[in-house]
Amino acid sequence: MARVVVDVMLKPEILDPQGQAIAGACGRLGFTGVSEVRQGKRFEVEVDGEVDDAKLADVRRMAETLLANPVIEDFSLRVE
Amino acid sequence: MARVVVDVMLKPEILDPQGQAIAGACGRLGFTGVSEVRQGKRFEVEVDGEVDDAKLADVRRMAETLLANPVIEDFSLRVE
Repeated sequence: MARVVVDVMLKPEILDPQGQAIAGACGRLGFTGVSEVRQGKRFEVEVDGEVDDAKLADVRRMAETLLANPVIEDFSLRVE
Repeated sequence: MARVVVDVMLKPEILDPQGQAIAGACGRLGFTGVSEVRQGKRFEVEVDGEVDDAKLADVRRMAETLLANPVIEDFSLRVE
């Protein structure tokens, strides 16, 4: 059993109102020195057996089609 | 300018229906070998200047009070 972590974030050019709301709340709550916050998603995918290149390619295809919207989001994979 | 990444995941003992729905969809879409999916949140916090211990403690306090619900969620910080 191995774990592949898929991080999905909005592309830098896409407005992130959730992140902006958090950054605004930081200021009001007294956390200074925070200039920007962006919110994204993190998926922990447990795959059976070892993660080889074929399995990783499978998870990448899954991320492209199911976990992320490639029009507005970037994603990255890493094995943990 | 430095970036602190805060990963927030539901505690292992908390049911994750979103993750279960994704795992179910994986099977229906033909992605085999996926045994479990858990979904969480990822925050990219940009802080001014260098990240020292005091700044990291600030972000940790921010994660506890604003980004995560410590009753049902665990979080981890890392500097990128």
